[in-house]
Amino acid sequence: MNKIEHIGIAVKSLENSNELFSKLFGVPSYKTETVESENVKTSFFKVGTNKIELLEATNEDSPIAKFIAKKGEGIHHIAFDVDDIVAEVKRLTNAGFVVLNDPEVSGLKKGADNKLVVFLHPKTTNGVLIELCQEIVLKE
Amino acid sequence: MNKIEHIGIAVKSLENSNELFSKLFGVPSYKTETVESENVKTSFFKVGTNKIELLEATNEDSPIAKFIAKKGEGIHHIAFDVDDIVAEVKRLTNAGFVVLNDPEVSGLKKGADNKLVVFLHPKTTNGVLIELCQEIVLKE
Repeated sequence: MNKIEHIGIAVKSLENSNELFSKLFGVPSYKTETVESENVKTSFFKVGTNKIELLEATNEDSPIAKFIAKKGEGIHHIAFDVDDIVAEVKRLTNAGFVVLNDPEVSGLKKGADNKLVVFLHPKTTNGVLIELCQEIVLKE
Repeated sequence: MNKIEHIGIAVKSLENSNELFSKLFGVPSYKTETVESENVKTSFFKVGTNKIELLEATNEDSPIAKFIAKKGEGIHHIAFDVDDIVAEVKRLTNAGFVVLNDPEVSGLKKGADNKLVVFLHPKTTNGVLIELCQEIVLKE
């Protein structure tokens, strides 16, 4: 794992939280993006070499809607940047971690911000939802 | 704010979680430290340019014991590295954020890992407990 790529924060209103986090970081959000497959609208902030991702549910089926209903607004996940997500998932499942989407079973999943993503089940990571992500680079 | 300095994770057993996170990151913890004033025992991992801090309560009065009793194990706070913590607290309180320990009232507080620290109240930051930290550098 190379570094913390981003921290995901579940919010009720992206509009209100964009304003709040702009004040906090002293910079505006640099992009918003809807991820249809996850039922979320996202907004990104840069803080040095890291990013903060705000997540708003687009409907009731969104994992973010369920998270907020259960725990309230707050930190939802930590994402770590990896070079080879398939190899990293193999290493971690061999070590006893459980993935929510196994690329060998369901194929690789595309998340926000042009990334391949795999989530680890929080039951195997002290209650912390961990995302592994690898930048998608297309051959020219 | 320069970058995410570390993410704090509340755990029940530092011993068990040290083993777990060593497997996760593929590297062992590089230091453990007890912060008497906060009633916590901490353990640090390096992930690239960021750190992960595991926090175990040393007694029932610890904020970590209270956090785990209420929410279970999981992400406790995000710490951002700043160059001038007093100026940053002024900027943020002027913008409407509330600090848990105001350096102008109670003086600066020393946290783990040789840092001056100030926490922002999560009620003003979408439920996210945010720590500002500045490295203590002593003149030779």
